[in-house]
Amino acid sequence: MGLFTKDIKTMNDLFVHQLQDIYYAEKQLTKALPKMAEKAADKELRQGFLKHLDETKMHVQRLEQVFQMHGAEIKAVTCPAIDGIIKEADETAGDVADKRVLDAALINAAQAAEHYEIARYGSLIAWAKQLGRNDCAAILQKTLDEEKATDQKLTALAEGKINLKAAS
Amino acid sequence: MGLFTKDIKTMNDLFVHQLQDIYYAEKQLTKALPKMAEKAADKELRQGFLKHLDETKMHVQRLEQVFQMHGAEIKAVTCPAIDGIIKEADETAGDVADKRVLDAALINAAQAAEHYEIARYGSLIAWAKQLGRNDCAAILQKTLDEEKATDQKLTALAEGKINLKAAS
Repeated sequence: MGLFTKDIKTMNDLFVHQLQDIYYAEKQLTKALPKMAEKAADKELRQGFLKHLDETKMHVQRLEQVFQMHGAEIKAVTCPAIDGIIKEADETAGDVADKRVLDAALINAAQAAEHYEIARYGSLIAWAKQLGRNDCAAILQKTLDEEKATDQKLTALAEGKINLKAAS
Repeated sequence: MGLFTKDIKTMNDLFVHQLQDIYYAEKQLTKALPKMAEKAADKELRQGFLKHLDETKMHVQRLEQVFQMHGAEIKAVTCPAIDGIIKEADETAGDVADKRVLDAALINAAQAAEHYEIARYGSLIAWAKQLGRNDCAAILQKTLDEEKATDQKLTALAEGKINLKAAS
């Protein structure tokens, strides 16, 4: 999809464009998550990132399934939003001197990515239903549920342990 | 805060850095929202963006209040995440040929920004409490509540009207 080419003429075009965008985002996250796991000092946090890496790989596969079901080409378009979120995570992480404070910053970064995905999958599911593609919506819903669960686990880990250690 | 200067040594440093980041983001949104309102074809959506512009201006003021209460300099640091979200919103909007489809795309863009803020304020509130600044947390909570309410209103408007019009 080029810049300002007016290629999006229907809601179906918008749906496919957004699929391409989140497909790019999920693929970028499969590269970012191992680096975040490597930086994490807390073992539980590191394992959490690795578990979510496995889920993210499954989200990529589910998107490929939705592309195919919908008869659309499996394709990624650059998503400046996730690039910005990952860039900010890298910059902030690079500025943190203390390992325990870094863990708190890593959770914050991961939750920004989760919330980006929660917003995008929310729209995709609503649009899929509007387009009569309840089958696609059901698959996307599985991923949305996992993103929300990951966000909640990160909050619990931050408030139950990581923030306490970071502030000590 | 420079790139990789290791300036963040404590949780307090991280808290102040994140305040500076969201301060930048809120200020960028005060510039983006009037443009989104101008592009919106649906009157209710346009008014929603303008109402949220007023709220966003209040969020900027609340952040200035928190900086002052916490004895920190009122300062913004570039936030690549919100820049990416706004860039993506502009690019997608520029690609949409149909006004009703554009309204659906605008809601999607606005919800990405809302969710970014929900993630950031969530961390800020948790960190403020950890630092014993329940007074700052209470002010930030007011903004978080408004961001969540805006996100819910946008979902209701999308699912109740805008998506129906866009798919027709």
